[in-house]
Amino acid sequence: MMKVIVFLLFAVLIPAKYASAQTCCTVDRAIDEMIKAAIDSKVSAALEKAQLTCTSVSARGADVTCPLGYKATGCACGMACGSWDIRGDNQCHCQCANIDWTAARCCKVVVVG
Amino acid sequence: MMKVIVFLLFAVLIPAKYASAQTCCTVDRAIDEMIKAAIDSKVSAALEKAQLTCTSVSARGADVTCPLGYKATGCACGMACGSWDIRGDNQCHCQCANIDWTAARCCKVVVVG
Amino acid sequence: MMKVIVFLLFAVLIPAKYASAQTCCTVDRAIDEMIKAAIDSKVSAALEKAQLTCTSVSARGADVTCPLGYKATGCACGMACGSWDIRGDNQCHCQCANIDWTAARCCKVVVVG
Repeated sequence: MMKVIVFLLFAVLIPAKYASAQTCCTVDRAIDEMIKAAIDSKVSAALEKAQLTCTSVSARGADVTCPLGYKATGCACGMACGSWDIRGDNQCHCQCANIDWTAARCCKVVVVG
Repeated sequence: MMKVIVFLLFAVLIPAKYASAQTCCTVDRAIDEMIKAAIDSKVSAALEKAQLTCTSVSARGADVTCPLGYKATGCACGMACGSWDIRGDNQCHCQCANIDWTAARCCKVVVVG
Repeated sequence: MMKVIVFLLFAVLIPAKYASAQTCCTVDRAIDEMIKAAIDSKVSAALEKAQLTCTSVSARGADVTCPLGYKATGCACGMACGSWDIRGDNQCHCQCANIDWTAARCCKVVVVG
């Protein structure tokens, strides 16, 4: 009878151990797949939300500054003047003498939704 | 003999239970690490694909509108005119009288590849 | 006594198998939740790092080209001229005759930090 019991123990426990080892790697691989698929779809969806947003500001005189966080992408000047430069990344300066107004086009990247 | 069997049972099953508890947390932590590493590399790779893309449109007269989805970042006008404004985020308007042509520079964020 | 041992075996092993099956699905769902939460926060944090960066270049004559990787978003010209066009996505060309200088505003999307 002792032999029967020992056989029973091994018959039950050895396959269990084997199954557990197999589960480890199958689960490992499955998790890896789940992570990759989840990340791909999430990242794609999130990136679609990255958009360019722009606004305009204008002021009397030869200078105007974009709102905080925006970069100047172009400038317009009064008196039909097309000569300008951008100072410090976000400030438009019109170069013609006695300019009456200056406008800045200001843009940034935002995450919408 | 009964004692031997009961001892055998405990000797086999108690370490198994202990190992299982330990596996739970090790696996938990390992999964967490896998997720973090996978996300970091995927997100970095995806962000590299976010690019600014631009196009130009021009039309006769004092107004021109960017294609759908694009924002106007600057305008050019005929007759050397540098006085313009942007209406409704995507439309260039040249202010000089009897302007012959108007052009818009139009940009948006795209995910390439 | 044989019956007692067999009963003991089943009493110990059957719940173990059941618990393992249950663990599988709870763990599965927990991993899924962990992945989703981790991705959401990582992607949001990463997207906040996508910014617009701009620079200006100018040159004598009627043409100037943006640095590699940048797109032209607007142009400025000497002699108060506001008539220009953008060639090949990154090159500003001023159209007025005998223009003395041309400047380009150049931008791209970068991942900061």
